[in-house]
Amino acid sequence: MYRTKTCGELRLSDAGTTVTLAGWVQRLRKMGGMTFVDLRDRYGITQIVFNNEVNADLCEAANHLGREYVVQVTGTVSERSNKNANLPTGDIEIIAGQLCVLNPSEIPPFTIEDDTDGGDDLRMKYRYLDLRRTAVRKNLELRHKMTMEVRRYLDSKGFLEIETPMLVGSTPEGARDFVVPSRMNQGQFYALPQSPQTLKQLLMVSGMDRYFQIVKCFRDEDLRADRQPEFTQIDCEMSYVHQDDIINLFEGMAKHLFKEIRGIELTEPFQRMPWAEAMKYYGSDKPDLRFGMKFVELMDILKGYGFSVFDNAEYIGGICAKGAASYTRKQIDQLTEFVKRPQIGAKGMVYARIEADGTVKSSVDKFYSQDVLAKVKEAFAAEPGDLILILSGDDAMKTRKQLCELRLEMGNRLGLRDKNQFACLWVVDFPMFEWSDEEQRLMAMHHPFTHPKDEDIALLDTDPAAVRADAYDMVINGVEVGGGSIRIHDSKLQAKMFEILGFTPEKAQEQFGFLMNAFKFGAPPHGGLAYGLDRWVSLFAGLDSIRDCIAFPKNNSGRDVMLDAPAALDQKQLDELALKIDIKE
Amino acid sequence: MYRTKTCGELRLSDAGTTVTLAGWVQRLRKMGGMTFVDLRDRYGITQIVFNNEVNADLCEAANHLGREYVVQVTGTVSERSNKNANLPTGDIEIIAGQLCVLNPSEIPPFTIEDDTDGGDDLRMKYRYLDLRRTAVRKNLELRHKMTMEVRRYLDSKGFLEIETPMLVGSTPEGARDFVVPSRMNQGQFYALPQSPQTLKQLLMVSGMDRYFQIVKCFRDEDLRADRQPEFTQIDCEMSYVHQDDIINLFEGMAKHLFKEIRGIELTEPFQRMPWAEAMKYYGSDKPDLRFGMKFVELMDILKGYGFSVFDNAEYIGGICAKGAASYTRKQIDQLTEFVKRPQIGAKGMVYARIEADGTVKSSVDKFYSQDVLAKVKEAFAAEPGDLILILSGDDAMKTRKQLCELRLEMGNRLGLRDKNQFACLWVVDFPMFEWSDEEQRLMAMHHPFTHPKDEDIALLDTDPAAVRADAYDMVINGVEVGGGSIRIHDSKLQAKMFEILGFTPEKAQEQFGFLMNAFKFGAPPHGGLAYGLDRWVSLFAGLDSIRDCIAFPKNNSGRDVMLDAPAALDQKQLDELALKIDIKE
Repeated sequence: MYRTKTCGELRLSDAGTTVTLAGWVQRLRKMGGMTFVDLRDRYGITQIVFNNEVNADLCEAANHLGREYVVQVTGTVSERSNKNANLPTGDIEIIAGQLCVLNPSEIPPFTIEDDTDGGDDLRMKYRYLDLRRTAVRKNLELRHKMTMEVRRYLDSKGFLEIETPMLVGSTPEGARDFVVPSRMNQGQFYALPQSPQTLKQLLMVSGMDRYFQIVKCFRDEDLRADRQPEFTQIDCEMSYVHQDDIINLFEGMAKHLFKEIRGIELTEPFQRMPWAEAMKYYGSDKPDLRFGMKFVELMDILKGYGFSVFDNAEYIGGICAKGAASYTRKQIDQLTEFVKRPQIGAKGMVYARIEADGTVKSSVDKFYSQDVLAKVKEAFAAEPGDLILILSGDDAMKTRKQLCELRLEMGNRLGLRDKNQFACLWVVDFPMFEWSDEEQRLMAMHHPFTHPKDEDIALLDTDPAAVRADAYDMVINGVEVGGGSIRIHDSKLQAKMFEILGFTPEKAQEQFGFLMNAFKFGAPPHGGLAYGLDRWVSLFAGLDSIRDCIAFPKNNSGRDVMLDAPAALDQKQLDELALKIDIKE
Repeated sequence: MYRTKTCGELRLSDAGTTVTLAGWVQRLRKMGGMTFVDLRDRYGITQIVFNNEVNADLCEAANHLGREYVVQVTGTVSERSNKNANLPTGDIEIIAGQLCVLNPSEIPPFTIEDDTDGGDDLRMKYRYLDLRRTAVRKNLELRHKMTMEVRRYLDSKGFLEIETPMLVGSTPEGARDFVVPSRMNQGQFYALPQSPQTLKQLLMVSGMDRYFQIVKCFRDEDLRADRQPEFTQIDCEMSYVHQDDIINLFEGMAKHLFKEIRGIELTEPFQRMPWAEAMKYYGSDKPDLRFGMKFVELMDILKGYGFSVFDNAEYIGGICAKGAASYTRKQIDQLTEFVKRPQIGAKGMVYARIEADGTVKSSVDKFYSQDVLAKVKEAFAAEPGDLILILSGDDAMKTRKQLCELRLEMGNRLGLRDKNQFACLWVVDFPMFEWSDEEQRLMAMHHPFTHPKDEDIALLDTDPAAVRADAYDMVINGVEVGGGSIRIHDSKLQAKMFEILGFTPEKAQEQFGFLMNAFKFGAPPHGGLAYGLDRWVSLFAGLDSIRDCIAFPKNNSGRDVMLDAPAALDQKQLDELALKIDIKE
């Protein structure tokens, strides 16, 4: 080893010992014949002292060190006169006796500090320098700790981690696949898995009983802020279980992680909320329950007074923001602008302030008497000082989603979304199908292998849109961290499901024949779920984006700017794969 | 849960309790009004009894069960009169009270037994049934246990598991890449990593200090028996280390695994053998040291007696097979045929038996006197009853490799390669380069990032072929389970290495610029290694092929016959990727 100790471990009790450290020069300060170097490694920072009077040559050498030089220092641990309480090693310093430059460094393109001066693009290009920053490194350490704990927990519950292949078959159902041309089977392609869904179901057919895998998955989608073309799933499946068994076991895992990773003991069972309720009261299948502001529907109260916007609406509903009656005209205009942004799409917003005397002052006073407004106030149990915000529209679901955005915005503005507070719940009883305007047919809301609720199976023939599924999502702070379902294990029911989803029997056989055939040889009842590891780590790390808990992420164009990938191939490689590039202008 | 207990856990102490089990029908036997069902799950087998006299309907239902039906049984645990000492549950049986068929099964295409009647092709097509066999399932359980232990050990040593990307850039140096066309960057391709080599080096530049990852890697090679297009590596890297630090730490890990997985305490340090010695005495860089039979060179003894084969040889050497003098003419002919097979390529084989009276009887007696043959006998310290086998050739290295094959064959024939005995060693001091006849240039024996031995650096300019590297392989029972090296951390030395390997500065910059640039910003000294997980698991499981420790392997044409992948793509998918298939006849 180039060192006997790390830069994070020396304490006052080590004073007097001779040590060798190795690391990066974080900072260099000269003060009256002394040179102080902050030496950094993964484990911490230790101050090194060079004294010009004791060893002028050595001090001179130290004075030539630059930021991020890699050096090895041997010296004596000594008590500091000027202790630094902010550093675990702040009680000591090393009186240097030897200095060896292991590798010099050019001046880095940005400062290696928690508050760096580097912009996003520069940080991504020099990601290996960005990762030197404590703030980023800590995210990767947390990620490591989290996957260790997940494995420990699942191993203790009898789960086996089983690797499923990365080179599988393409299944056009679902998102777009990344594909891999085969050289040995020219003209044919593998696909990279969007998830090991069918493979883990086959593992249940094979009797593995309890499976998990922390595994890379791939989706070739147009990237949004919080999406990466490759992402990591904690993928789990169990046999001989009902929905409650899965929910209980994985709620246990979540509580274990909260305790081990964040030191938070969650003693209460997580709330379970039917999807219909989540949509009705929060306009979202992943409500953020760190704060209230439940929707109140106002159709009965506000219709029929000549305000045509409301009179013609299919939905009128609002939220009550406690203590926000003091919002200025400007603040309210900002909110109106917010809901009218194209991404949200509301036509406008109505507000009603509860004045100190209990009367209501609204933006639609000319249509509504105090009597009617008092009923609105009552519906929210609003108090003086509160601000009621109301949206309406001709599509109830769309309007609820707009109101959801407004609710979250108000939560932000009122400081109700503390990153160190966690609200966990299960959303259950999802609809089996949702209508796709684009495809003009029913689509599986989760995926085609989801088991309908036993009591709703009869509806498959008469009213499929009303069928609910044995599906569940775990939601934390408005983020869907995971989700899953009980799966169909009966090949006939599976065939019916494909039929409802518009597959011809031939197409179903072509794409999922291997699974339906497997079900003929004794498939056990089974179900499972998958967590988005990147999202969950981000949540625990308090990050706004998943990017900073990934060592080498891609940008929004799917590029790795550090590696400069993707890139053109050699012609020889294309020839071997029997491929031609054919870009249409 | 569909069960209160598994099929593996009930014991005599549970007698009298009511339990519910669920599992697969392994076997059904009718005996005098009783029906016995062996019910199987991952955890074991439990006997269920149906009594026609007690419940005729239930017994009748049981009689209609078929192999691999999935059933749920409730009944009372009862002591067996006829105990089965071979089963952990053999002291008890379940007197069935209720029976529910959860899923019937068609007759499986092969028997679900350790000794199945299914051939390889059928087993791979129905892999989900093959995995039900205890023999195969145990391999996956061992694999799980092994990765858990690897993670536990490395975590305890301060290693962080860090995921590196799967969609990276293509680097034509090395084996052939699998590539992934980019839709968002048409005409450009990602590559799947052959290993995270450069990325883990960047993690060292980033100060992560100790990294590991159990990770899928990809090589598009023509497949041999023991190769898969995707395989799993235990990939490790450390900073501020010398070769010995890495060897010691990972020898510790190997010993930990031997103890935890196989219950074997290895107390001695592993032998370390220079590559040159391994080649000289075993004709292999991965010698199987479970047995001796070291090569003895016979050039000095056997040249110059008129036997032109030897007189013209560049190498003459042999092995001594203890106690094999009794080999018949036929057995010796078989060995001669063995070494003359095209895969081995020897021209012939000479033998010499040590007779009971100490005289030597050889196949070249007409050229050599007993005096000369006595010298041969002495060179091997051979005793009466031993058989000496000699090969010669005009290329020393090739002949040694032929002799290596012969040695391994004799080891097999003499039963010296016991799968439950383990001989571990490190092969060290590898040559830096090897000459490629195909490319007509020096190639990196490990890879271009390997650090030359400090004392050999001067030879880079004068005699590069003589340069040895700080590279090491861990070899167990003749299998290279892992290997690694100290890496170059100096961008100038790295540039020189690329030059020797025939890269122009532009080509080196194009392909590895990101790494050489990174080295300019303070790269620490670092090194590491990677293990082939599949091979190591196979070794511990006593398997001849890596295939049976992989859940869903590919066949020798790179196909997954269960999923029927790879396959043709929809035209729409090709269009989106701007690709045309162009197969030349």
